[in-house]
Amino acid sequence: MTFLYILDLVGTGVFAISGALSALNKKIYHDLFGMFFVGFLTAIGGGTMRDIAIGAHPLVWIRDSSYIIVILLGVALAILLRKLWMNTLRRPLLFFDTLGVGLFTILGAQKAIAFGVNAWAAVLLGMISAIFGGVLRDTLVNDLPIIFSKEIYATACLAGAVFYVFGRQIGMDPALNLILSVGIITAIRLLSIRYGWSLPRIEV
Amino acid sequence: MTFLYILDLVGTGVFAISGALSALNKKIYHDLFGMFFVGFLTAIGGGTMRDIAIGAHPLVWIRDSSYIIVILLGVALAILLRKLWMNTLRRPLLFFDTLGVGLFTILGAQKAIAFGVNAWAAVLLGMISAIFGGVLRDTLVNDLPIIFSKEIYATACLAGAVFYVFGRQIGMDPALNLILSVGIITAIRLLSIRYGWSLPRIEV
Amino acid sequence: MTFLYILDLVGTGVFAISGALSALNKKIYHDLFGMFFVGFLTAIGGGTMRDIAIGAHPLVWIRDSSYIIVILLGVALAILLRKLWMNTLRRPLLFFDTLGVGLFTILGAQKAIAFGVNAWAAVLLGMISAIFGGVLRDTLVNDLPIIFSKEIYATACLAGAVFYVFGRQIGMDPALNLILSVGIITAIRLLSIRYGWSLPRIEV
Repeated sequence: MTFLYILDLVGTGVFAISGALSALNKKIYHDLFGMFFVGFLTAIGGGTMRDIAIGAHPLVWIRDSSYIIVILLGVALAILLRKLWMNTLRRPLLFFDTLGVGLFTILGAQKAIAFGVNAWAAVLLGMISAIFGGVLRDTLVNDLPIIFSKEIYATACLAGAVFYVFGRQIGMDPALNLILSVGIITAIRLLSIRYGWSLPRIEV
Repeated sequence: MTFLYILDLVGTGVFAISGALSALNKKIYHDLFGMFFVGFLTAIGGGTMRDIAIGAHPLVWIRDSSYIIVILLGVALAILLRKLWMNTLRRPLLFFDTLGVGLFTILGAQKAIAFGVNAWAAVLLGMISAIFGGVLRDTLVNDLPIIFSKEIYATACLAGAVFYVFGRQIGMDPALNLILSVGIITAIRLLSIRYGWSLPRIEV
Repeated sequence: MTFLYILDLVGTGVFAISGALSALNKKIYHDLFGMFFVGFLTAIGGGTMRDIAIGAHPLVWIRDSSYIIVILLGVALAILLRKLWMNTLRRPLLFFDTLGVGLFTILGAQKAIAFGVNAWAAVLLGMISAIFGGVLRDTLVNDLPIIFSKEIYATACLAGAVFYVFGRQIGMDPALNLILSVGIITAIRLLSIRYGWSLPRIEV
């Protein structure tokens, strides 16, 4: 599990960076505390919601201090390299963010299944693990939550989570299943940004 | 308990419909995902808050997949019959919503008592079970939460819950107690809409 | 522990007063239910978040009805003396609020440590215990959350919590540690208001 653990920490750091940068973009939040606060909630929000829903205690960032340390490092990196992130690194950050969202979805569904939840709930909890930090981040800085953006976001997580849960049930090799389902989420998300895909709108 | 279980599922479906229709009314949310997301949170919000507060794990929609399926059905019904709901069915929906709120209050208080909470907390948790989904729905679509509307809403839940908890303590017949206390909530709510009742305002 | 228990109840009442007065200041909330609702969430918000995060069940206000009764008393006092609070008592209320925040921080960190959390998490959970009620209050009445005010607020809690956790680890006398760390929070907060201290802002 060492590899997945490292990926989980990297994803946490990436979310902390994206939260801190969001705070920096808004005048009212851009002191040290505001950046840390938004970065912290962005990084832990999704996993915390999932763990509270399935009753997994103690929360992972309470049990293992590495998470808080990684978040502090992420916020520090966001501050030190803030000009770089805003310009040159915008594109790589988007890529890592997308990869992180895909990974958090599947790790979240995996953890939910390990707690014995039903397949429907596993799919929803995978999605919640991935998106809830971003919902908190966008709500705190008064942006429209990215999950309601024109492009496909949360639905990509749902698709990948459905694939993963189904793959488990037909006995697919776990590593292959992980790679494919994270790949599906990343691909749908990146393609929908590239080609402007969106869900059908319901007209009244 | 089969009858109460069916009522609980029906109430869940009604809340999902009301959430999905609220999303449909707001431009930014009216794709398939937005309607499902708001419908889902409206339907599970109150019960989830109550269960987290009393430490009841796993949450009911995680243990029993019927709830998620009913929510999907509710959202589908909201979409398919959207013209009907907006026009002809507005009034029946309000009636069922009111009945659902009354029912959720008393079922919530009942569950809280079964977990051994004190009488004050049982009343509050009954009210939270009934209103929190609507608070999430209205907050997500940026409406003023209905609990702060001019008419009496949450206070009706408090009144019914106080009656129910008191009725239990004096040993009233459970079925009669349920019917009377749900009736009190529904009656106060519908009469306050009909006659424009409101709580005394506190002037500074 | 009787003394700490009384302090905890007093802090709860003070938070209920500050929540109810915030509601009174906003037109849409100033009926009886609005004042109680905001007062209740302000008073229980921080401790509830902490207890949910560490998995402490049942929540303290569910186990011990004194908390709800104290909140009802606080809201009643806010209503009866509303003219006094708004004018003559504004300054004493600020002082008690500051003392309450300091106390809730250290009691929160203490409880988190008793549940075996790591030192980093204890500091964060101490801060969350103290500030989250105020965040809920300000969000409900659409004020900018006080933790993002120009003056130092949450950072004072962090400083006091770091001192307290460190003091425990070097074996400082518990009573002295409590007094000193609450004193640090109160002093930083009051001095930052008096002299307009603020954290360095990060410029893009």
